[in-house]
Amino acid sequence: MLRRAVSAFCYAAARAIPALRQRNIALPQLPFLRASLIPGLNSDYQSVTLSWPFSSFRPRDYSLPNPSWSPQMLRLYNYYNNLCEQDGEGGKKEIGPWIRLPSYNRTVKYATGGQCLSKVLQAKARLFTRNIEEEGAAFEYAMFLNTEEKAAVCVFQAGPLLEGPVGNLHGGAIATIIDTVTGALSIYLGGLVVTANLNVNYRSPIPLGSVVLVHAALEKMEDRKIYISCQVTSSDGSKLHTEATALFVKVNVGHLFER
Amino acid sequence: MLRRAVSAFCYAAARAIPALRQRNIALPQLPFLRASLIPGLNSDYQSVTLSWPFSSFRPRDYSLPNPSWSPQMLRLYNYYNNLCEQDGEGGKKEIGPWIRLPSYNRTVKYATGGQCLSKVLQAKARLFTRNIEEEGAAFEYAMFLNTEEKAAVCVFQAGPLLEGPVGNLHGGAIATIIDTVTGALSIYLGGLVVTANLNVNYRSPIPLGSVVLVHAALEKMEDRKIYISCQVTSSDGSKLHTEATALFVKVNVGHLFER
Repeated sequence: MLRRAVSAFCYAAARAIPALRQRNIALPQLPFLRASLIPGLNSDYQSVTLSWPFSSFRPRDYSLPNPSWSPQMLRLYNYYNNLCEQDGEGGKKEIGPWIRLPSYNRTVKYATGGQCLSKVLQAKARLFTRNIEEEGAAFEYAMFLNTEEKAAVCVFQAGPLLEGPVGNLHGGAIATIIDTVTGALSIYLGGLVVTANLNVNYRSPIPLGSVVLVHAALEKMEDRKIYISCQVTSSDGSKLHTEATALFVKVNVGHLFER
Repeated sequence: MLRRAVSAFCYAAARAIPALRQRNIALPQLPFLRASLIPGLNSDYQSVTLSWPFSSFRPRDYSLPNPSWSPQMLRLYNYYNNLCEQDGEGGKKEIGPWIRLPSYNRTVKYATGGQCLSKVLQAKARLFTRNIEEEGAAFEYAMFLNTEEKAAVCVFQAGPLLEGPVGNLHGGAIATIIDTVTGALSIYLGGLVVTANLNVNYRSPIPLGSVVLVHAALEKMEDRKIYISCQVTSSDGSKLHTEATALFVKVNVGHLFER
């Protein structure tokens, strides 16, 4: 039943693409459901959209700059965002190996038809890293993928609601942004995946309010397993705050609904 | 400067204890700063309070039951809470090996005198796991320590704002509650500690809205290192959702402010 519902979703998405392709709006970042799962979406993940879902509602893209971003955060964002466009023939802008990932605060609940969650829970559900509306209060981040190098970079500004040790980021918040960035890379590489292991070594505290870079890179892929390494550094790369490895496993969508 | 400020805080706290001791109100759970750091507080962690901090303001204890708790959550809370009282001589209630840890949404920013954070950040800072006021929306949990067995149990209800894979808890949210529970046990055992390593194996997804148990136990202590094991199970213990190990290291308070 669930598989059929998701198949129907993908089929409807594929049918909608030709009409939407010309709008050149980014595909919503669907956690644990990547573009390649939808027939016809493989080659242009960053330039195709689905309306949300199949309506005129346009959700907020949380990875775009807002007034809470510090000059440092904005500078790093602009640096990586500029890498997403390359000069092609005749000076025309072309899509480069870098892709900016948009980021929304909802996952695709509609695919399940509400089978697994009460309607109340389903309506209230929000992506953990985007569950606070106040700009600058919690996770402010933007992710960029390098499709050639199979790597990702995230510029991350740590808001005051993420406190653990006094004045510093909570270890769980650091694990969360690592899971998010390594997960996004794994989804790009492997489609529908779940985190199987996260091994985090905390080297030095990250002060609240600071801007850091989260680097993730593919180490190896074996059958259904995707191994990713990750480092969290200061914005100039001079200080290593955290090192981690992550293992993701490709799954069928039914895995998420085994109760 | 910082050490002197913290020393002054501890000294003031120690002076305040005699007057406060008779009020039999729980000591605020100060993340990464435990009672034993304050002279005279070692033996009765659960029955002494400091006013918050040195004022008439009483912060909300987030670990107490609220209307969002499911009957299952409430039943488990009551089970462990009842273990915190034992029948003593003459039927008089005595404090047992179990301790309920109260939980607040602020750490001791005052100890630093605002040296390390801007006043704006300092005023806004909230503990990551308690940064959402709406009851039932995010982390609902209560922690209990067994001082004899050097173990901890947390009853945890996962709210809809903690979503990762559709309908399920975010891997980062699971890592966060593990860090919180193993951290609380380490703070009890070792005083001021920081997380050095968190190694999490995700065995099966945790549906949003469900109630789970987080078990943590001391494995060994070596010099400044505290090794904790942790399991997240279904509320009846029949299903293992997550396994983890955590390493905490005792530090001086100055470590948190090295920039």
